[in-house]
Amino acid sequence: MSPATNHLGIDVGGTKSLGVVVDADARIVRTARHATPHGADAVIDTIVALVDELGPVDTVGVGVAGLVTHDGVLRAAPNLPGIRELAVGDRLRRRLGRDVAVENDATCATVAEWRLGAGDGVPEMLMVALGTGIGGGVVSGGEIRRGRNGFAGEFGHMVIDPHGPPCVCGRRGCWERFASGAGMARLAREAALGGRAARVVDLAGGDAELVRGEHVQTAAREGDADALAVVDEFGRWVALGLANLTNAFDPEVIVVGGGLVSGVDLYREPVERWFAELLYAPEARPHPRLTVARLGEQAGAVGAALLGAGRAD
Amino acid sequence: MSPATNHLGIDVGGTKSLGVVVDADARIVRTARHATPHGADAVIDTIVALVDELGPVDTVGVGVAGLVTHDGVLRAAPNLPGIRELAVGDRLRRRLGRDVAVENDATCATVAEWRLGAGDGVPEMLMVALGTGIGGGVVSGGEIRRGRNGFAGEFGHMVIDPHGPPCVCGRRGCWERFASGAGMARLAREAALGGRAARVVDLAGGDAELVRGEHVQTAAREGDADALAVVDEFGRWVALGLANLTNAFDPEVIVVGGGLVSGVDLYREPVERWFAELLYAPEARPHPRLTVARLGEQAGAVGAALLGAGRAD
Repeated sequence: MSPATNHLGIDVGGTKSLGVVVDADARIVRTARHATPHGADAVIDTIVALVDELGPVDTVGVGVAGLVTHDGVLRAAPNLPGIRELAVGDRLRRRLGRDVAVENDATCATVAEWRLGAGDGVPEMLMVALGTGIGGGVVSGGEIRRGRNGFAGEFGHMVIDPHGPPCVCGRRGCWERFASGAGMARLAREAALGGRAARVVDLAGGDAELVRGEHVQTAAREGDADALAVVDEFGRWVALGLANLTNAFDPEVIVVGGGLVSGVDLYREPVERWFAELLYAPEARPHPRLTVARLGEQAGAVGAALLGAGRAD
Repeated sequence: MSPATNHLGIDVGGTKSLGVVVDADARIVRTARHATPHGADAVIDTIVALVDELGPVDTVGVGVAGLVTHDGVLRAAPNLPGIRELAVGDRLRRRLGRDVAVENDATCATVAEWRLGAGDGVPEMLMVALGTGIGGGVVSGGEIRRGRNGFAGEFGHMVIDPHGPPCVCGRRGCWERFASGAGMARLAREAALGGRAARVVDLAGGDAELVRGEHVQTAAREGDADALAVVDEFGRWVALGLANLTNAFDPEVIVVGGGLVSGVDLYREPVERWFAELLYAPEARPHPRLTVARLGEQAGAVGAALLGAGRAD
């Protein structure tokens, strides 16, 4: 890249689509955002609008939540209702008259954190993005690993409790039923329905069914013991999944990101304590370093820009 | 390697240690075996004895069950009582006056199946060895992946049911409590204690506590419905773990090996049926191919020979 080049990255999330332009030093020089509309055509239109708004640029990369194949087909997208088998790459190439790199959004965030953020460029790194659900990405041998089809890193749907609550994916006890934003809310509702967590229910307007993760966090910050117990339980579930991933990948660093990072001051201590407790053979191994993502909500868009520029590795 | 070279591989298992010499075409030309003794010094002596017995050779590789670091230190070995922090590589170098490659035994078996067996050399492959416990190995991007410390692929201690039975590792509900030889026996004992599996208990001499995996297999081959139900349940637990690994790694091929392969005629159908059922987004993805290991009990030793010869990739 010459110093004057500009690279556009767009992160198409379940609620909003964020575009950023980075320069040759990966500094953000422009940003724009739109609400993510419903339906395939409208999503493509939104991406094209962001390209028009933020252009001209030298390369374009797009991250999308869901199963994205190596050739840019979105096979399944639980958070984008009505979208399946959408050839995002081909559609954008035709509309824009240029090549567009299309990747899973968590893969994009992984690239950004690895190259520019909390991953420090280590050769063995995992990213776990705790949001509404759980996304993930894998760096091994100093390269992003996408697996056979591009679907590696779908950590959220690893079953960790076959007797657990039903998941949107049709099975039971997926990790993201416990360790996501939706998971924290569920743990809190269970506590509330069990007669605990009165303050949390208060904050939800008195209806246990309306409890959300932020009510737990607010009550926990006030020092409410029941809310802190929910946070501790949440931390244990997060740690259980991270320990499982450590068995599988043996990473040096695990970067924890996603929307729930805003509450990390609350659950960092429980996660770290439970992680040390749940790790296999903890006395015989260096413990992976757990770090917090540094690029915030822009990680996906920045990573998409890096991938579009061919700067993933 | 010149055509005349010979490569020795030794697989140190919990009960026996197997040595094989392979030629430049990876054909086995000599084998020997000893019982694996107890204690660090005796294990080293046994390896040295196998080298003396099978030599002269050009290279030596050793596979050991447990956490093996990149520089050949056995940090923890649940199946080799009394052994911890054993510098296998250094000890053998001193005794033999030559370099010796030391690796985890499942990593060795993975290399062998990938290069010469059921893995067909595909770039994205997992091996899962179902024996007394569960071992594993990872091929990604066309290379063996060992992780930061050499400990990747410890699939057996991924927790899949936190309310499950206690594991030797000190936690609860590890995958190998369900999907190993010990797991099948446990499932059968539970059925027996619940008043089912009368024929299985018969075969165990009338004592439900003495039921082992082979009793289940014998009764299932006779067509006993209770035994077949245990095999089905076992197949579901195997499949659950394989589906989890698919989410994490997105492999093209999963090779199932280890001692339990002898019963694969019984559980192949249940494993495949449950795998298709438990896979995340099964309609949106090519299903990984499940294949049975082809190198049998010699996989570990052959893989150790290949790794010793520097022919892992």
